[in-house]
Amino acid sequence: MDTTLASTSRDLSALFDPRAIAIVGASDDDSKWGYALAERALTAPGDRHVHLVNRRGGTVLGRTTVRSLSELGPDAGVDLVALCVPAAGFLAAVDDALAAGVRAPVAITAGLGELGAEGAAVQAEAVSRVRAAGAVMVGPNCAGVEDLTTGLQLSSEVLRPGHVAVLSQSGNMVIDLDDRMRQVGLGISRFVSLGNQADLTVVDLMQSCVTHDGTSSVAIYAEDVVHGRGFVTAARTLADAGKPVVLLAPGRTDAATRGAASHTGSLTTAARVLDAACAAGGVQRVESPEQLIDLLSGLAGPRRSAGRQVAVLTDGGGHGAVAADAVGAAGLHASLLSPALGEQLTLALWPHSKVSNPVDLAGVGEQDPFSYGRALGVLLGSDEVDGVLLTGYFGGYSLLPISLAGRELAAADDLALRVAAQGKPVVVQSVYPDSPSSQLLRAAGVPVLRDAGRAAVVLAALCRPSPATRHDPLALPDPAAPVTDTAYGTVRDLLAAAGVPFPAAREVRDEAGLRTALPDLLATGPVALKALGLLHKSDAGGVVLGLRDEAAALVAYRDLLARLAPPSVSVEQLADTAAGVEVIVGSRLDARFGPVLMVGLGGVLTEVLDDVAFALGPVSTATAAELLLSLRGAPLLTGTRGRPPVDLDALAALVARVSEVAAAHPEIAELEINPVLATPQGAVGLDARAIARPAD
Amino acid sequence: MDTTLASTSRDLSALFDPRAIAIVGASDDDSKWGYALAERALTAPGDRHVHLVNRRGGTVLGRTTVRSLSELGPDAGVDLVALCVPAAGFLAAVDDALAAGVRAPVAITAGLGELGAEGAAVQAEAVSRVRAAGAVMVGPNCAGVEDLTTGLQLSSEVLRPGHVAVLSQSGNMVIDLDDRMRQVGLGISRFVSLGNQADLTVVDLMQSCVTHDGTSSVAIYAEDVVHGRGFVTAARTLADAGKPVVLLAPGRTDAATRGAASHTGSLTTAARVLDAACAAGGVQRVESPEQLIDLLSGLAGPRRSAGRQVAVLTDGGGHGAVAADAVGAAGLHASLLSPALGEQLTLALWPHSKVSNPVDLAGVGEQDPFSYGRALGVLLGSDEVDGVLLTGYFGGYSLLPISLAGRELAAADDLALRVAAQGKPVVVQSVYPDSPSSQLLRAAGVPVLRDAGRAAVVLAALCRPSPATRHDPLALPDPAAPVTDTAYGTVRDLLAAAGVPFPAAREVRDEAGLRTALPDLLATGPVALKALGLLHKSDAGGVVLGLRDEAAALVAYRDLLARLAPPSVSVEQLADTAAGVEVIVGSRLDARFGPVLMVGLGGVLTEVLDDVAFALGPVSTATAAELLLSLRGAPLLTGTRGRPPVDLDALAALVARVSEVAAAHPEIAELEINPVLATPQGAVGLDARAIARPAD
Repeated sequence: MDTTLASTSRDLSALFDPRAIAIVGASDDDSKWGYALAERALTAPGDRHVHLVNRRGGTVLGRTTVRSLSELGPDAGVDLVALCVPAAGFLAAVDDALAAGVRAPVAITAGLGELGAEGAAVQAEAVSRVRAAGAVMVGPNCAGVEDLTTGLQLSSEVLRPGHVAVLSQSGNMVIDLDDRMRQVGLGISRFVSLGNQADLTVVDLMQSCVTHDGTSSVAIYAEDVVHGRGFVTAARTLADAGKPVVLLAPGRTDAATRGAASHTGSLTTAARVLDAACAAGGVQRVESPEQLIDLLSGLAGPRRSAGRQVAVLTDGGGHGAVAADAVGAAGLHASLLSPALGEQLTLALWPHSKVSNPVDLAGVGEQDPFSYGRALGVLLGSDEVDGVLLTGYFGGYSLLPISLAGRELAAADDLALRVAAQGKPVVVQSVYPDSPSSQLLRAAGVPVLRDAGRAAVVLAALCRPSPATRHDPLALPDPAAPVTDTAYGTVRDLLAAAGVPFPAAREVRDEAGLRTALPDLLATGPVALKALGLLHKSDAGGVVLGLRDEAAALVAYRDLLARLAPPSVSVEQLADTAAGVEVIVGSRLDARFGPVLMVGLGGVLTEVLDDVAFALGPVSTATAAELLLSLRGAPLLTGTRGRPPVDLDALAALVARVSEVAAAHPEIAELEINPVLATPQGAVGLDARAIARPAD
Repeated sequence: MDTTLASTSRDLSALFDPRAIAIVGASDDDSKWGYALAERALTAPGDRHVHLVNRRGGTVLGRTTVRSLSELGPDAGVDLVALCVPAAGFLAAVDDALAAGVRAPVAITAGLGELGAEGAAVQAEAVSRVRAAGAVMVGPNCAGVEDLTTGLQLSSEVLRPGHVAVLSQSGNMVIDLDDRMRQVGLGISRFVSLGNQADLTVVDLMQSCVTHDGTSSVAIYAEDVVHGRGFVTAARTLADAGKPVVLLAPGRTDAATRGAASHTGSLTTAARVLDAACAAGGVQRVESPEQLIDLLSGLAGPRRSAGRQVAVLTDGGGHGAVAADAVGAAGLHASLLSPALGEQLTLALWPHSKVSNPVDLAGVGEQDPFSYGRALGVLLGSDEVDGVLLTGYFGGYSLLPISLAGRELAAADDLALRVAAQGKPVVVQSVYPDSPSSQLLRAAGVPVLRDAGRAAVVLAALCRPSPATRHDPLALPDPAAPVTDTAYGTVRDLLAAAGVPFPAAREVRDEAGLRTALPDLLATGPVALKALGLLHKSDAGGVVLGLRDEAAALVAYRDLLARLAPPSVSVEQLADTAAGVEVIVGSRLDARFGPVLMVGLGGVLTEVLDDVAFALGPVSTATAAELLLSLRGAPLLTGTRGRPPVDLDALAALVARVSEVAAAHPEIAELEINPVLATPQGAVGLDARAIARPAD
């Protein structure tokens, strides 16, 4: 686990702007990497010198090769080499490169860490030699590096230049992204195929983009984010520099985390942890290459809203209705507009126009294309509207051989000016996304998409809460004195000491102890018995509730002993669960991202309801409250159907305490209170458990 | 409400294949419908005679017009007229048409029923005259009719001919659909703009497609499905004729049904009712024009599976992982393949290939394009696989100027043959959906899409349960003797008489009655008191539980009277809700679709959990069980975390009884038992309510 902040940025100038470069393993065989990279390097713009290395010598691609880097001498200035050699020759090639003064080996070589322990050992040895030499390495098992701002061409693809840095764990993915970027006028500043991330990781490469003038946003395809908290820090640094990060990370359908012993453990899947990390880092997570490019296209413009009330503006009822559904599915709201705003719109349009939401031009668009701009101007000028989705036929007139074509182009220009004049996002869905009018809009920074669903997702990304309101995890505290066991009493004491309230309880080991403990506890009402030393007490019938007197308690005690033979039993004041809401609060130590907090609706229904929310821990009380209110079942907490609201402040404070305890105890893998009973009077833990972190 | 089956199909031959046609209101003004329709009609193929009618006479589009249809005489054979006249002249134009022997007026005229009561009255009068004359009418407020199989061109659009009937309530939508169809090689057989559906409705037009040889599938855009059960019947008839129906019906984000008094009422939204109707009719409901055409494209082929276990086959790790997520999001399962199947795949591929799921060629595709077909053959031949999503680069080689291009084309041919050789569906995602290889596959009936999410949705549509397993609502029973009031006791008795178990109860009106009722009831345990005459008893504090003796019952009774002054109180045996699961069972009479059954997880949490399922009623016990098992919380019913399963048969039987009672009592708008307590021993209703249907 790496939960520290990322180390200081490493100097990657030798990687992205090397003086001279060399291809080790250059080849005339066009099925080999040594051919593709040499061919691309030799046709690169600029005057960077390219050396080809082939152990048999002779020529490759018509150029004289050397047999070894050592033949070049120190004055050759080779900062970067692409290593296209078999795995068996990898270490020697790294040594040769470092001896020749290379500061950035790019290791194409496959068959190392990705195949098992033996290759991993070779790979690790290479990393230690690279680092000892003060160099940096990409890969192994990578598909190359490009920097289109310095003329570095070291991959097999011809990429369109632009301002998006692409960091990808999949070689083919850049083909897909490049194709989509061409369609919307985007392009690539840098491309790094991450490979096995043995030395340089996605985090290092994200950091290198912070100060890279040629990069204005970062697209990441990652199957594994290795340095979790470093990833969050790097993403925040990029966001603060105005460079959005969009992440495509598959794995939604993974089975629940294996080996989890608690509810928290089984519900805290890798996909959810990564979602929490994205929330902390201000990263937009997407589900497909299409969505990735759609969002990059939208985020390339400067316009954002923190609110999510949008207007749908349409020239046809069908497209308006479909877009309204799409807007809702994307988590935006298209509420009815006020009568006052409706009147303004009617003045800007004509009497047949529908001025609710969607706003439907109902024919006036065809009569007067400038009505689109007038309606947009009214909507953008209103406090009721955070953004606008324009949907339908607009764009199509400019394709027709009639006078309307030219008027539509002028109207598109008018639309673009109105969008530019203020800060609210506008996204267009058009049946004709490549028409002259649509191209004019796109060139003006207004995203134009063929499908309303895609347009709504882009608009939603532009209407997100601003970075200032993202879930900031607190800094990880110094570890506290570790607990030496995870017995029920120990865990309860640990949490109680941190300020989590529990009902009065006494742990007893025999009937005498039980008789001694009972009078005080029974004085306040019925008691419960819990057989200790069992993980899921309630599943095993190890909890007996509602014992009103000593006789009943003794019967229940003997029964527990006979059935389960627990080493000890906890006698506790019984809480009235009918008087409140059962909540689960837990934290799981993630191997990548450190402590991850979970809150949810609890009790025995936790997994069935699956109504849970996550954040990187520890969290403030304010963040805890936000998480609780984000639950589907939040109305149970805030009061519904005659039930009074619970004490949300007390509940949120309890949640924050749990997150702090978990963060201070990295020896605990899973920490959980289930249920917490939240009532109008407060919040109290009715059970507690912890699972120790296995030895590494 | 229309809950009857649709009437016998009406003869629409005059509409779709008229002898001669006329445009009433033909015009030279190119901003008018009378111009667009005349222009299209005059350029139609075939020798159908087109008459132009203009009240001022003279020429239009260079053709001599008549001033009135009456000038043509009965021998003109005008079966169909397009009425492009202002609303003020509409009725007279209808009369003229009927007098001239027209059998199918197509009413373009707007400003009638869609604007309010006055126009609706004119429209209704027109319908009665049309029907009295034995004619049929489309519209008013429609955008025309086309039948590309008979050369009928009466809309403003130039549509691509094909085999899809398009029935649309939005004029512009056909532009969008036509554009998308062109891209995938589909086209239109008939297009009807439904308009206000004053006479002919979507149901009539669906029925007309059943026997139309030129139509092989039906695409519907509808904002309002007017004859609900007729829609279901027509859809089933089409499905039985092998003609899939795909419905785009916006309205997902509508507010909950207004005016609903019960939980059932507020949860039974129009969108959910339509979903239930689609399940009953075997209709595929989609969310966007894009999805509509994607599904039509997939459904055009003959291959279907009833199972949902699919394999993802990829030539790149990234695309495979993204597709696996997409498959999961579409409700399919990409489970691990068996070791035996893995071995077969390894033999067909090479040692580096990953043979889990996704199956990743890992380089062998580039070496040998026929490896795609070999892997596909193995997968399709296995019982473990119901369908295959092929994803990644395939298709791209055929664009390259290398010898691999031709080999890929041959490999695509091989793939197409393997798909054709068996019945399982295969869908392709390709970065190059328009390449020669992709076009070859598409021409062979294999859908090829650019995006994995879209491909997965198409595959899911082809892997649906077959029509035989759809939710068949039972026939609506004859109405039973209506209940005269909806008092608690009446409703409880009605349901009890139908076989729904309730705890013993006595309704009392004073303390003497209470004292008389108590001994018998208390003999079996504590009792509950319910104040009657209040709609939401528990919200108002009108339910008191756990009264163990007469004294406690009397105190509670007096308190209820003092607080709520109920006209009467029900004294009931108290069920132990902790011993079971609380379920809600209800039925709402929908204005379009008749009785709609709802089951869900109940109690006070119904709305918060929103874990509900719907079907058109009445339902069989088997369908009721299916609905219950489709709930998110179904594990609570089938047993989870140490809880025993409930008696599902008894619960499903209770649900079926409620659906039958609701169907037999159309005077009841909402009928609900909440909660039903389901236990391992049975299912019992703990409350009941009904809301009378308001007078029409």
